[in-house]
Amino acid sequence: MQKHVVVIGAVALGPKAAARFKRLEPDSRVTMVDRGKLISYGGCGIPYFISGDVSEAAQLRNTAFHMLRDEEFFRKTKGVDVRTETEALAIDRAAKTVRVRHLPTGAEELLAYDKLVLGTGSTPSPLPVPGAQLGGVHAITSLEAAQSIRALVSGGGVARAVVVGAGFIGLEMAEALADMWGVETTVVEFRDQILPGVLGANLARMAQRHMEEKGVTFRLGEQVRAIESDGGGDGEGRVARVVTSNATLQADLVVVAIGVRPSSGLARAAGLDVSERGGIRVDAHMRTSDPDIFAGGDCVELTQRITGQPVYLPLGSLANRQGRIIGTNLAGGQARFEGAVGSWCVKLFERCAAGTGLTLPAALAAGFDAHSVHVSQLDRAHFYPGKGLMSLELVAERGTGRVLGMQGLAVGGDALVGRVNVVAALLPSAPTVEDLGGLEMAYSPPFAAALDILNVTANVAENVLAGRNRGIQADEFAALWAERARGERFFLDCRERANAEDLLARHPEHWHNIPQGDLAGRLAELPRDKGIVLACNTGARSYEAFVTLAHAGFTDVVSVEGGMTAVLAAGVDL
Amino acid sequence: MQKHVVVIGAVALGPKAAARFKRLEPDSRVTMVDRGKLISYGGCGIPYFISGDVSEAAQLRNTAFHMLRDEEFFRKTKGVDVRTETEALAIDRAAKTVRVRHLPTGAEELLAYDKLVLGTGSTPSPLPVPGAQLGGVHAITSLEAAQSIRALVSGGGVARAVVVGAGFIGLEMAEALADMWGVETTVVEFRDQILPGVLGANLARMAQRHMEEKGVTFRLGEQVRAIESDGGGDGEGRVARVVTSNATLQADLVVVAIGVRPSSGLARAAGLDVSERGGIRVDAHMRTSDPDIFAGGDCVELTQRITGQPVYLPLGSLANRQGRIIGTNLAGGQARFEGAVGSWCVKLFERCAAGTGLTLPAALAAGFDAHSVHVSQLDRAHFYPGKGLMSLELVAERGTGRVLGMQGLAVGGDALVGRVNVVAALLPSAPTVEDLGGLEMAYSPPFAAALDILNVTANVAENVLAGRNRGIQADEFAALWAERARGERFFLDCRERANAEDLLARHPEHWHNIPQGDLAGRLAELPRDKGIVLACNTGARSYEAFVTLAHAGFTDVVSVEGGMTAVLAAGVDL
Repeated sequence: MQKHVVVIGAVALGPKAAARFKRLEPDSRVTMVDRGKLISYGGCGIPYFISGDVSEAAQLRNTAFHMLRDEEFFRKTKGVDVRTETEALAIDRAAKTVRVRHLPTGAEELLAYDKLVLGTGSTPSPLPVPGAQLGGVHAITSLEAAQSIRALVSGGGVARAVVVGAGFIGLEMAEALADMWGVETTVVEFRDQILPGVLGANLARMAQRHMEEKGVTFRLGEQVRAIESDGGGDGEGRVARVVTSNATLQADLVVVAIGVRPSSGLARAAGLDVSERGGIRVDAHMRTSDPDIFAGGDCVELTQRITGQPVYLPLGSLANRQGRIIGTNLAGGQARFEGAVGSWCVKLFERCAAGTGLTLPAALAAGFDAHSVHVSQLDRAHFYPGKGLMSLELVAERGTGRVLGMQGLAVGGDALVGRVNVVAALLPSAPTVEDLGGLEMAYSPPFAAALDILNVTANVAENVLAGRNRGIQADEFAALWAERARGERFFLDCRERANAEDLLARHPEHWHNIPQGDLAGRLAELPRDKGIVLACNTGARSYEAFVTLAHAGFTDVVSVEGGMTAVLAAGVDL
Repeated sequence: MQKHVVVIGAVALGPKAAARFKRLEPDSRVTMVDRGKLISYGGCGIPYFISGDVSEAAQLRNTAFHMLRDEEFFRKTKGVDVRTETEALAIDRAAKTVRVRHLPTGAEELLAYDKLVLGTGSTPSPLPVPGAQLGGVHAITSLEAAQSIRALVSGGGVARAVVVGAGFIGLEMAEALADMWGVETTVVEFRDQILPGVLGANLARMAQRHMEEKGVTFRLGEQVRAIESDGGGDGEGRVARVVTSNATLQADLVVVAIGVRPSSGLARAAGLDVSERGGIRVDAHMRTSDPDIFAGGDCVELTQRITGQPVYLPLGSLANRQGRIIGTNLAGGQARFEGAVGSWCVKLFERCAAGTGLTLPAALAAGFDAHSVHVSQLDRAHFYPGKGLMSLELVAERGTGRVLGMQGLAVGGDALVGRVNVVAALLPSAPTVEDLGGLEMAYSPPFAAALDILNVTANVAENVLAGRNRGIQADEFAALWAERARGERFFLDCRERANAEDLLARHPEHWHNIPQGDLAGRLAELPRDKGIVLACNTGARSYEAFVTLAHAGFTDVVSVEGGMTAVLAAGVDL
């Protein structure tokens, strides 16, 4: 049966749904409308366009083989009619029409539909402070907005920038400005860590430290109170300063990246079911509360597959998958989108951060009796040239050993993303740490260690959950070390003497060394009335030492997870 | 209960089992014996030692933090007694003893055990031809053997080498010799492709072509008949020539890498259950037919998790996992090893090949009604600098859509291995192509495309299995093209004119071009009495064209999977 499908929004979900449907039902008609002039662009590439890594905005609009994805492209190659600069004003569900306005002419028209697709996306959250509308204050709203920022920066008019928000886009923008254009860049974040909500505190500190080494300044736990110009006090002219809860920062450019909200006004006005947080509610077939209307991408609320709770995940990767599912179902299919575990990755200068599932705080907040372990080790055979350090945090449930999430930071981004994707693929089936420990991973020295870091991390978690090891993380170690003068803890470096020499010289009273191999024969040197803190290079030998001490009846012992490698990477100053 | 565990073999499985057991039962005793002088080394690193990437043999014996894993290391840090140069001669299962001989002195001794672990490994298959024992003919049997080869090569005494066998080790050795030492290297392989059994023919040809560009010569489908010296006719002196079924090749060095066999003589003599192919049979707890004897690593036969059939997979990665399981079970645990899907990866100059599960021929041989699809595309956002080409072959069962395996070849090795590991993790739960198509993968332009190549490949497979597309692979295309003079096929390039220009000029009679976007309006230009062969850059536009032609009633149409990218990479000469 020939249908007319109307698609509102032509960036990620809409084009995918439209093209898939047309391939399945070549006789049907599809009309796609978008408020913007530019459609079907790679919005996630905007920071790389601003940095100059992507030299032309057109590259974000091209196919891999240099065809511009414009109206003509969709008409000719996909058989989809596209109307740009055309805003959808209202949906009449009873009449099955959408009222649209052509923005340049103001002409309005009713589009009748058999099925409707909402891919209305998201809107950046505005910064609710005076001066947010000043010239030079930008959100990353569209490719057009990105072109303005790039023009400003490449014109040499920006010496100092403030980025508000240390989420994915904020950090990518900070890198783009600091790295490629040499702009003195400060990131202001209201929460007390970067990548809040998606990365644990320890890994976040390691990532932050790397970005600081690359020249980015962070002001965490600070709120922006006002943005000021030199022109006058009432918000006119161009930005000159950002006033935070603690300081006044000079700025020629302010990038606001404090998150996005679902663009669901149209859906709400049409009486569709929309959550309190503003996401359009859809079922597993991506149908809204009206069976003739599908929705997906940044405008919908999803189900978190681990908690079963609603979640808002505005990710381009998910929009593309959902678009295909909607395309299939428009043609009468029964494709399902069961929700998401929430996988992500981000490049931060010469590091990659990535994760999937729940962080430890998120797992605890969701009611899991959760624990996490940290491992820092090489991402491939230690004897192979070109190896890099990878740090993983694996979150698991006590008792059951169920894996709830994993986050990581690494030099080798592809290697980290590969491990994260493996865990993500398994998460919906609720794997245990034992399952991950035994997981078969392809091995050859240039690409992995014989026992992959993912296996090792899961084995560490298994040992910790079974009580065979008790770990502390770098920040807990730092707290204990800060109180060393109290004499309540015995800090035992169980590496070989040569590795410990430097710290022994600097802290002769507080730092001790017994190589793990000698420990069983030198137990008498250890105090029985103090807590013992074990440290080695990566946590592997301190685990062996922990076993030795536990066997000898020592009960108040902890070992530093990830060892001195993790401590140093977290910037803990000894 | 305190036990005495004897472990025979101290390379990969043995040390892992011994150390894990000692941590779980610190009071028990472990004695590990090995025939060699050097133990616990990274055998998979040998080609990198020979190439010089790894400068000292000791690096393969070290921990990540430079501790030599020798007898003293195991005694002190792991509490395991090791006896090197000590051969196990016979097991008396009734008396629960192992007779061992100290090779330097010839002294024999009986070791009593409560539990015994066999990690006896494998032996390189000998080349059954005259001259195989000549000087300069080497198998990669041990680190000692590797040191001999390296000494020979680094001494400048090798101008020409012949590698017999194009499996993992053969190809790694060919790279080591050709790349780092500039040795004129020829690989002779009895089968008609490289990496037989683990990689499909098309990908194998692409990999071979890359190695040829790097200077390696291949002689496929050729058998070695004899190895000759200049010294005399009866196998004395040093190698001078390799005589194959087709040619005589000058050689100063011959590396024999035609596979390995389980070293199971000791087990067989003790009456343990050993398969016809020589692998020790074990249950899911890695127990042999004698419940007091465990075995694992290269000496055992495993279960292929997709076919359920016995399989021999001598991989260091599996040995390490099995070692930990044996360690757990020695201490009364119930850890299980359910078998393997068979994941692997190998570096070939500037490419990586990797795979998991069944190849198409293996799937067909196992009785599956299997089909495979090929996709060649960029491994990350096409606009991001540093992207590389990745080619994947996904093998699936018709009807059910069950995924049976995936193999790939890529510039970005970590990126490929990451995708292979994702499929490997899912294979035991029998995923469908639809499951893979919707799989959540972390996305950011520096690391992936919004719809990952793995999702795309699965979607292509879904379309092919559903009959919405019909693909041919590069070799099938080459065969059709070779018969172009018969006029039975119409070769239609559906890229833009500029992409097709070169081939149109070279083959004006046989090559045709209608850009896919124009196709619906130019159907009259197509013959109705010929088969139509569609080609584009990657297979994406030819799929669109296929849909258009199917809709217009054309029935004899095929599209080239992976497009001209795959055709060129396979070295098909147009």
